[in-house]
Amino acid sequence: MKSCIKLYESSGSPNSRRVRIFVAEKGICVSRIPVDLGTKEQNSEAYVKINPRGVVPTLVLDEGTEIGEVPAILRYLEEAHPTTPLLGTTPAEKAVVAMWDRRMELEGFAAVMETVRNKLPGLKDRAIAGTHDYKQIPALVERGQQRVANFYADLESRLNEVTFVGGDRFSVADITAVVTVDFATKALSLGIPEGNSATRSWYDKIAARSSFAA
Amino acid sequence: MKSCIKLYESSGSPNSRRVRIFVAEKGICVSRIPVDLGTKEQNSEAYVKINPRGVVPTLVLDEGTEIGEVPAILRYLEEAHPTTPLLGTTPAEKAVVAMWDRRMELEGFAAVMETVRNKLPGLKDRAIAGTHDYKQIPALVERGQQRVANFYADLESRLNEVTFVGGDRFSVADITAVVTVDFATKALSLGIPEGNSATRSWYDKIAARSSFAA
Repeated sequence: MKSCIKLYESSGSPNSRRVRIFVAEKGICVSRIPVDLGTKEQNSEAYVKINPRGVVPTLVLDEGTEIGEVPAILRYLEEAHPTTPLLGTTPAEKAVVAMWDRRMELEGFAAVMETVRNKLPGLKDRAIAGTHDYKQIPALVERGQQRVANFYADLESRLNEVTFVGGDRFSVADITAVVTVDFATKALSLGIPEGNSATRSWYDKIAARSSFAA
Repeated sequence: MKSCIKLYESSGSPNSRRVRIFVAEKGICVSRIPVDLGTKEQNSEAYVKINPRGVVPTLVLDEGTEIGEVPAILRYLEEAHPTTPLLGTTPAEKAVVAMWDRRMELEGFAAVMETVRNKLPGLKDRAIAGTHDYKQIPALVERGQQRVANFYADLESRLNEVTFVGGDRFSVADITAVVTVDFATKALSLGIPEGNSATRSWYDKIAARSSFAA
């Protein structure tokens, strides 16, 4: 019996959810191994051997290679399981999808993450993920509200022009964007603004896919 | 006569240099079109049509597709010109290279960029690249010094274990790392710390490649 790829992850981690949705869309067999962020298991000696930055998720291949960082994990999964492409097909489409995925990540996902990490009392001195401690900076929380507002405005403009974030087809850029919307809504009470009808209609379409529950 | 791909870029932009080195390593024919950051040409109506975020570089394909964001540009170039692979070859190697390139970018390049953008008087209200204005936050300059110090320490650890940042072979991760070192040295006077001998020896090796002058 062929074993499934091992994915170390956490159910409450938005970065883990990006991988779970991707895997569900492609129908890849993955063994989920929970890492308990509540007890800081991600900083345990055993886990840091797998992921030296002490962050989830990490994909561990059968031959032992450990892959951290969501875009790197998704790159492996797309290369090894090319059916149902989610990173584009032609060279130009791959690049355009990568561009939009990155915009969603840097201007959306990372903005929400920065705000959360600088705001929550439980993340004191953990303003940046990884092995190094950094103090929270309150000004980043204020700036974060503005960054998320700008993200929503730019996403609405984009979705007034195209059906999916990356263009004509569902792609990883939609996954990053929808995880960002849910993360902002849940962690910061910053949901899709009233009147952003293109974003609302796109969201409802993505949320209707079976992968959304992943 | 086949035309070369058009690259809109600026000689002083570290993000443009990442693309120039990549292109030089692969020997791809590229027409460089200068964008004058000194006169804010990146925000001109003509350029924003090509790159809505108003940032350099942008690659424009013969059929008109515009590709912004360095990793997206490099993805296109690697797919369209697979000779001399710089993003890895097997699925696992592609993922490992992507992981290390991202670590160099997020913990190195982005840390230097954040520090510079929050520090220079000429970048007042331009603390984040893109179409939206954000005020500088002085605390980020102080934090930036620490982030760059941590980047150098982590890079030294990595290079004590492997020959190149991504593993056994020269890759995009070396390009991102070397551009980061030069950027930190020039813009922040934060050069490779004394005693980081693995980093120094790696740097000298990379600097000896003809692409380094790009």
